[in-house]
Amino acid sequence: MKIGIIMGSDSDLPIMREAADFLGELNIPYELTIVSAHRTPKRLYDYAEKARDRGFGVIIAGAGGAAHLPGMVASVTTLPVIGVPIMTKALKGVDSLYSIAQMPPGIPVATVAINGAKNAGILAASILAVHDKEIRAYLRAYKDKLNENVHEKIDKLEKVGYKQYLKEM
Amino acid sequence: MKIGIIMGSDSDLPIMREAADFLGELNIPYELTIVSAHRTPKRLYDYAEKARDRGFGVIIAGAGGAAHLPGMVASVTTLPVIGVPIMTKALKGVDSLYSIAQMPPGIPVATVAINGAKNAGILAASILAVHDKEIRAYLRAYKDKLNENVHEKIDKLEKVGYKQYLKEM
Amino acid sequence: MKIGIIMGSDSDLPIMREAADFLGELNIPYELTIVSAHRTPKRLYDYAEKARDRGFGVIIAGAGGAAHLPGMVASVTTLPVIGVPIMTKALKGVDSLYSIAQMPPGIPVATVAINGAKNAGILAASILAVHDKEIRAYLRAYKDKLNENVHEKIDKLEKVGYKQYLKEM
Amino acid sequence: MKIGIIMGSDSDLPIMREAADFLGELNIPYELTIVSAHRTPKRLYDYAEKARDRGFGVIIAGAGGAAHLPGMVASVTTLPVIGVPIMTKALKGVDSLYSIAQMPPGIPVATVAINGAKNAGILAASILAVHDKEIRAYLRAYKDKLNENVHEKIDKLEKVGYKQYLKEM
Amino acid sequence: MKIGIIMGSDSDLPIMREAADFLGELNIPYELTIVSAHRTPKRLYDYAEKARDRGFGVIIAGAGGAAHLPGMVASVTTLPVIGVPIMTKALKGVDSLYSIAQMPPGIPVATVAINGAKNAGILAASILAVHDKEIRAYLRAYKDKLNENVHEKIDKLEKVGYKQYLKEM
Amino acid sequence: MKIGIIMGSDSDLPIMREAADFLGELNIPYELTIVSAHRTPKRLYDYAEKARDRGFGVIIAGAGGAAHLPGMVASVTTLPVIGVPIMTKALKGVDSLYSIAQMPPGIPVATVAINGAKNAGILAASILAVHDKEIRAYLRAYKDKLNENVHEKIDKLEKVGYKQYLKEM
Amino acid sequence: MKIGIIMGSDSDLPIMREAADFLGELNIPYELTIVSAHRTPKRLYDYAEKARDRGFGVIIAGAGGAAHLPGMVASVTTLPVIGVPIMTKALKGVDSLYSIAQMPPGIPVATVAINGAKNAGILAASILAVHDKEIRAYLRAYKDKLNENVHEKIDKLEKVGYKQYLKEM
Amino acid sequence: MKIGIIMGSDSDLPIMREAADFLGELNIPYELTIVSAHRTPKRLYDYAEKARDRGFGVIIAGAGGAAHLPGMVASVTTLPVIGVPIMTKALKGVDSLYSIAQMPPGIPVATVAINGAKNAGILAASILAVHDKEIRAYLRAYKDKLNENVHEKIDKLEKVGYKQYLKEM
Repeated sequence: MKIGIIMGSDSDLPIMREAADFLGELNIPYELTIVSAHRTPKRLYDYAEKARDRGFGVIIAGAGGAAHLPGMVASVTTLPVIGVPIMTKALKGVDSLYSIAQMPPGIPVATVAINGAKNAGILAASILAVHDKEIRAYLRAYKDKLNENVHEKIDKLEKVGYKQYLKEM
Repeated sequence: MKIGIIMGSDSDLPIMREAADFLGELNIPYELTIVSAHRTPKRLYDYAEKARDRGFGVIIAGAGGAAHLPGMVASVTTLPVIGVPIMTKALKGVDSLYSIAQMPPGIPVATVAINGAKNAGILAASILAVHDKEIRAYLRAYKDKLNENVHEKIDKLEKVGYKQYLKEM
Repeated sequence: MKIGIIMGSDSDLPIMREAADFLGELNIPYELTIVSAHRTPKRLYDYAEKARDRGFGVIIAGAGGAAHLPGMVASVTTLPVIGVPIMTKALKGVDSLYSIAQMPPGIPVATVAINGAKNAGILAASILAVHDKEIRAYLRAYKDKLNENVHEKIDKLEKVGYKQYLKEM
Repeated sequence: MKIGIIMGSDSDLPIMREAADFLGELNIPYELTIVSAHRTPKRLYDYAEKARDRGFGVIIAGAGGAAHLPGMVASVTTLPVIGVPIMTKALKGVDSLYSIAQMPPGIPVATVAINGAKNAGILAASILAVHDKEIRAYLRAYKDKLNENVHEKIDKLEKVGYKQYLKEM
Repeated sequence: MKIGIIMGSDSDLPIMREAADFLGELNIPYELTIVSAHRTPKRLYDYAEKARDRGFGVIIAGAGGAAHLPGMVASVTTLPVIGVPIMTKALKGVDSLYSIAQMPPGIPVATVAINGAKNAGILAASILAVHDKEIRAYLRAYKDKLNENVHEKIDKLEKVGYKQYLKEM
Repeated sequence: MKIGIIMGSDSDLPIMREAADFLGELNIPYELTIVSAHRTPKRLYDYAEKARDRGFGVIIAGAGGAAHLPGMVASVTTLPVIGVPIMTKALKGVDSLYSIAQMPPGIPVATVAINGAKNAGILAASILAVHDKEIRAYLRAYKDKLNENVHEKIDKLEKVGYKQYLKEM
Repeated sequence: MKIGIIMGSDSDLPIMREAADFLGELNIPYELTIVSAHRTPKRLYDYAEKARDRGFGVIIAGAGGAAHLPGMVASVTTLPVIGVPIMTKALKGVDSLYSIAQMPPGIPVATVAINGAKNAGILAASILAVHDKEIRAYLRAYKDKLNENVHEKIDKLEKVGYKQYLKEM
Repeated sequence: MKIGIIMGSDSDLPIMREAADFLGELNIPYELTIVSAHRTPKRLYDYAEKARDRGFGVIIAGAGGAAHLPGMVASVTTLPVIGVPIMTKALKGVDSLYSIAQMPPGIPVATVAINGAKNAGILAASILAVHDKEIRAYLRAYKDKLNENVHEKIDKLEKVGYKQYLKEM
């Protein structure tokens, strides 16, 4: 079962790649492409309609500003759709966040933080992990690793003191 | 040439009716119906695609929250699309306003004020008026009437004083 | 596989019940209870740690204000966690939304709209549906029903006109 | 029929030029100048009053901060007025957006996104296109081009993969 | 020397009256009327242009939403203009506040709090008081009275205790 | 009669100097110094108490963040107090704006735009001009100059076209 | 050692009483009164200057809008000052929150939630508890009680089910 | 009695060090380390539970975004907890501020300004100073020093004038 990663524009790619990077690390198959709600509305419709039959288990959709992509995909498919609000120049992504999160009753989008593409990847993995022990183990290991990384920093901080630590940052 | 008035839900009707009321006063033909971006995505697509051939000159679309209707209609048709951000319970329509106004380059939506359905009707009329002298005359008369109404209030205020005026409000 | 529905306070119940109601309609088993991040921190920890072993597939967590429950549950478990920002008196749920959505890299929460408990239920169902054909069929039927409901309203609107429709609302 | 493009200050020109650029590409005649609501109020009044007789079909007005230009022009003329909220240093254009969009009943301004001057140009063209088949064809071609551009990027992304794509950005 | 009190609509009168009430208490002459920036733009221009010659020393202007009245008056006259942002339904007066306060360099508006019409009256009086000893004495007496009123409440609070005080509120 | 220009910190000086610069151009005497509400509360009290006797006609006070200086000066003196909200790093001056503008009934502060020190200077001059013909003439000349500057730009724009104009900016 | 509870106006009393109520339950002595930053500035100064000598250990100060009271008290005394942002009509307490929390380096105010007077009382008690075992025990008991209350609700919810629970709310 | 300084990530250290620096200057013992609510939830629980027994008198906790650290520590311990909202990239720390300040009744966090780590240090010292005369004297000296520094700047400003002062900044 693979993950669909789509974004409204290639300008979102520097952020959205983090979802792909994470899934790649876990060997979870994914397909990354551009689907623009506003410039390719027909493609959006087709993509969403065929997504389950094409073997997708989860869709991750990133968009900025009047960010309609995640919600419109969710209006067509019954697959879980994860929305990534992309940070914008003027409104800093509050527009994207509101456009993605504030969906009406009946059509949910699983919204992550502004620019939170990595978390979208992790969330998609955790959804597959509901029925996949291997991914579950990976996620547990990932969480343990996060914990470990913090402890390494704690150790270093304790050893060298915060002033030295800051110099080495 | 007629105006299409659409809204995401019948709960928007108490606001959106003001567009229809205004157009009705000017004898501009319109068609009012519900098109939900999220619950009837295919209908949205069809509506927008056939709008010009069905004789519409302007589309007025009202929606609240993650308000995708106006922008998605605009992504399909080349008709001018006017978006009405509907006030919402939690975010008071700021979500609707951002979801409608912050469209990406290439796909404009003519956004009016939160709950500004009457102004959407006037704006639609002013668009038809670009090539229609009669509507233009109506709009001028309407503007003059607004001006007159203010002057009647001014006269009354002057005559009775503000304290009495407030009592009669 | 069952769904855990938790909330920070029984004052969230009038909203959070909508998740339970939806799951109940689909015969998806769930367990609804109160877990307060701030008043029962130990319970939160225990709940999250044992959730997978107790047979939960997804956790839905609702909280308002400085809403730490969803994120803290997500910090312990690798299950997908859905966060419902509850509307608040002063900040209208913007505080809840930010506290739930803006999680750091590594620990996602699937955030729905402010007061969007029903959508949390639907999203949870869609996650189970990734491997459950029956739920998938239910969700498709639910979506079709939403679509149908809109069409019934469209028909009525067409038949009686908007003025009569408004009177009957 | 020509388009009037006005702005409150020449500091808005780097943004507002995008409207002129777009109209220029479509060979739609336009007149671009500065009209400051606050520094040249009389000129504003005269400009708006004579606009229709001088052959304008639509006015595009850009302004930032306490952005009164679009609304004041709209108060005088019955032409459709498109407002472009210019991004500001402190409030990032939220001030401009509110000052332009939140017009009272009776006097609409067709508001586009913050810094959305290009969309203002497209919207103006779409208004002329209501009665002009040639512009309509141009707009359709422009929309098709937008669609095509996305597909070129999709093809490239598919061919080189996202990592290589990012390197070439 | 008298004060001009103007407002965009008679719906602002229940707030704006507080300015008149205050000036009335101090026997400072004022003239209260309606001047709508959007519905009576010519009247606005005339009012502002003749204001000094008609004997006004200060203009108080209240408006809500896209509140252009205070700034437009200030663009014409060199009299000090005090702006009162009126609270609005959706945006609670943040739109009014930004539209009034965020004036560009060259054209100041003295902005008071949302719905702060009383303070506009006091501020106008304080401006006249710069050269008027009597008004100055009034203002000092008013400030002393405010102080006294607080002390009366303090005394009562001390005497009856806060629980009883609350019952009597 | 002179103007007092005070600010909470010398870090506000690059902005607040614009008030002094403007007054200097008009030969209006002013005194510029630092008065910190939070670090020199006693000085604040003394400054405000003696301000009128020391010959001040208006106080201009700039402050950022929890900006208490203008309001606290206004609580002591009956002179008109103009508040300049200084832009801040995190909240961009919205904190300063709210802290200065939202004064309670009884104690007004004449608030200008975020970083609007120049306008504070102009406003102070316009207050003195209520009884000073010479300053009034200066202000009229200043306004005419603003108007002229716009017209010079209009002429140039017309002559060289916007593309050339932009190159020369 | 006693706690000083002050507020800018008796209109804050229905909220601020919660601090007194809590302290009263723990038998911690307190003194509740009105100190208005803007209407009784001298009293504010005196209050803050003598607070430590009068036996206060902590000051709790509540204020709304341009809420200067907590910060100004903190500018005079070295006692810990807790600020309670009172909810306001237009801006819902965001103005109060920013005015209280955004203090400059050197002068902290311990800010609690909007209308969070009860928490101010608890925080004040926790500060005394640093050196007072009895209060510490009280606070531990209070925390345990909060926990217990949640568990009672959990038990009831489990026993009667959420539908019945809601009926009995 | 020592102060615990914790932060969610070492990326907060450049800000949080200011608390340590201040306490260091006053010779108040402190322990600075990393405790991540989301990556080390168990450590958070342990840290908070043992904090008082380990000799801490106050906890300072800094975190950004969905900032749960201060509130979760406060949910476990009865020590006073000071929260430092760290500025974030997209929402500038408003998310952090709301996540930290908007705690529910029963569990206070003493919130300081966005990035206000220095003030957190001062506040912690003022809490210890409630029973420690020496720290009290230090704080008084610190406040006097702040005052003095302002006066030095005042003197310089007076001597060299603001234009020269600006050049030397």
